[in-house]
Amino acid sequence: MPLLDLRTDPVDLTAALVDIPSVSGEEAVIADAVESALRAQAPHLEVVRNGDAVLARTSLGRPSRVVLAGHLDTVPVNDNLPGKRTGDGAGEVLHGLGTVDMKGGDAVFLHLAATLPEPRHDVTFVFYDCEEVEAVRNGLGRIERELPEWLGGDLAIVGEPSNAVIEAGCQGTMRIELRTAGTRAHTARAWMGSNAIHALAEPLRRLTAYEPRVVEIDGLTYREGLQAVRIGGGVSGNVVPDAALLAVNHRFAPDRSPEQAEQHLREVFDGFDVTVVDSSPGALPGLGEPAAAELVAAAGGEVAAKLGWTDVARFAALGMPAVNFGPGDPTLAHTRQEHVAAAEIRRVAKVLGAFLSS
Amino acid sequence: MPLLDLRTDPVDLTAALVDIPSVSGEEAVIADAVESALRAQAPHLEVVRNGDAVLARTSLGRPSRVVLAGHLDTVPVNDNLPGKRTGDGAGEVLHGLGTVDMKGGDAVFLHLAATLPEPRHDVTFVFYDCEEVEAVRNGLGRIERELPEWLGGDLAIVGEPSNAVIEAGCQGTMRIELRTAGTRAHTARAWMGSNAIHALAEPLRRLTAYEPRVVEIDGLTYREGLQAVRIGGGVSGNVVPDAALLAVNHRFAPDRSPEQAEQHLREVFDGFDVTVVDSSPGALPGLGEPAAAELVAAAGGEVAAKLGWTDVARFAALGMPAVNFGPGDPTLAHTRQEHVAAAEIRRVAKVLGAFLSS
Repeated sequence: MPLLDLRTDPVDLTAALVDIPSVSGEEAVIADAVESALRAQAPHLEVVRNGDAVLARTSLGRPSRVVLAGHLDTVPVNDNLPGKRTGDGAGEVLHGLGTVDMKGGDAVFLHLAATLPEPRHDVTFVFYDCEEVEAVRNGLGRIERELPEWLGGDLAIVGEPSNAVIEAGCQGTMRIELRTAGTRAHTARAWMGSNAIHALAEPLRRLTAYEPRVVEIDGLTYREGLQAVRIGGGVSGNVVPDAALLAVNHRFAPDRSPEQAEQHLREVFDGFDVTVVDSSPGALPGLGEPAAAELVAAAGGEVAAKLGWTDVARFAALGMPAVNFGPGDPTLAHTRQEHVAAAEIRRVAKVLGAFLSS
Repeated sequence: MPLLDLRTDPVDLTAALVDIPSVSGEEAVIADAVESALRAQAPHLEVVRNGDAVLARTSLGRPSRVVLAGHLDTVPVNDNLPGKRTGDGAGEVLHGLGTVDMKGGDAVFLHLAATLPEPRHDVTFVFYDCEEVEAVRNGLGRIERELPEWLGGDLAIVGEPSNAVIEAGCQGTMRIELRTAGTRAHTARAWMGSNAIHALAEPLRRLTAYEPRVVEIDGLTYREGLQAVRIGGGVSGNVVPDAALLAVNHRFAPDRSPEQAEQHLREVFDGFDVTVVDSSPGALPGLGEPAAAELVAAAGGEVAAKLGWTDVARFAALGMPAVNFGPGDPTLAHTRQEHVAAAEIRRVAKVLGAFLSS
């Protein structure tokens, strides 16, 4: 099992976490490393293991509690592991899968866990699995069902990449499957059959013609999206196929509920067989909440709209103020070129360290 | 191993062959059964095994030789095994995978092999594997490379379904793969990427708008086709995919060479990345050849154009007259509802029996 030094520079710790591969569903090794490091190097914390999630908390009797949550998993490897470092000083950069999404945030939280034995607020750390896949597998959802008392608090900070700026709210996400049906026949006599792959031409045309909304809420700008994420069909090389499938991911601004988003997609794909396979609501910015506003101030007052869906929405649904705050440019997440400025990791560590110890 | 009685009614023998599953690549069991039945019940034949093909021939010193060829494999099972029988007398019907394509033809050939020890022509029987998949795996092609002396003769009869009518010539077939490329990005920020699945909208539009040619040759009508047979793409549920694929099968009339067909497809899909993955030429009707004309006359003079590609084209390329003649409606081949009239099996057995023993 890799050994992690939680007291080291959070940039070094990020690099160490990046080099432990942890594609969704394969987080056992990184979870073991995080658990054993917390037990050995943060003895002031109560630590529990839940599947491939690791939870830790103080119980100092403080009047308020802050939850710091980060997922340990990544999207599939794309020629971008192991990580590497370039530059130095202000120009130092970490490259590789997870540098942005979101081992920089995890490293900051782990560093705070080991180095702040007496925080101003009680703190709960949640390192969890399967954020990058279907909502039903999400480790935070499992914790919500199995260990709900661990998620309560007065403010949640999700360490997803936000350019080291507070990001408020998040967009909802919905995955649908559109299925076409046909009739099999030999391709030499195609007029006897009906081609289910050809029947995808029209839904693909609608997708390419789709104009996503741009929505303003509380002065923040949310930009929606509608993207095919999977297509499949075919029987064999000389058979007109009788079934095909198009999976689509919709990202919707938090002024719409999942029900409204589903209604919208049913209108877009009117006439086709559409099934919702996965859905997570967005979260309104919630900047009026005192604890959120206090953190925004501590970070210098800058705030932006969160476009990606993050588990901020889960905490919002629990009735807690919740924001995103983590190192890394979210537009680089899930790309082969994923990389983060070391300075952003240090900035997040500094702001949160000040917020929790002041 | 299933036991086959080659001397029984060819309809019963068809039913027995249908109930031995033999999807392409999995023909060992049926080839074993055919080989052992020929060795036991047709001792006048020289029998050889080649992979999952079985060959048998007379060497009686006749002035001419007829090759009877049938493939043993089927397309994938589609809820249509085991077979069943309905009706009786003139209304008797066999249902199930392979009843049409082409265990009825195989059964007639096997029956002739066991019951005509002294045919008028020397006869070569070829029962082979992997006709329903890529040309490179075709068992007859392997035999052509490894046992070329077994394929020579004055007339080839391929027992593919032809409504028990002589069918002349066949269309060519070509499979292409069209690939689209894009740039991965998180679906929440899709404008940072480029969606390779969306890029399939235009080739699919061209496919659905395509008007296939209808070509007259020697008074026979060939109807072309262009059909998607496979589509695929996708990385994960929240990633804009950077690669997608569309596989297309083109059936072309025998007035075009494979080179001309490829040129045509490159025009149809101009602007896209197209690779030819599989190609087989068609065969012109060739009704002027004396041996073919003699068989046509023996069968009552009726003749039609063959639309599907069959291994007739391989024999045509070897310089032999070659026709299709087998029981079953070719428009039912590769459909779940595959079924054949028992009377057609008996008609083919009677015509060929007369042709070979007269």
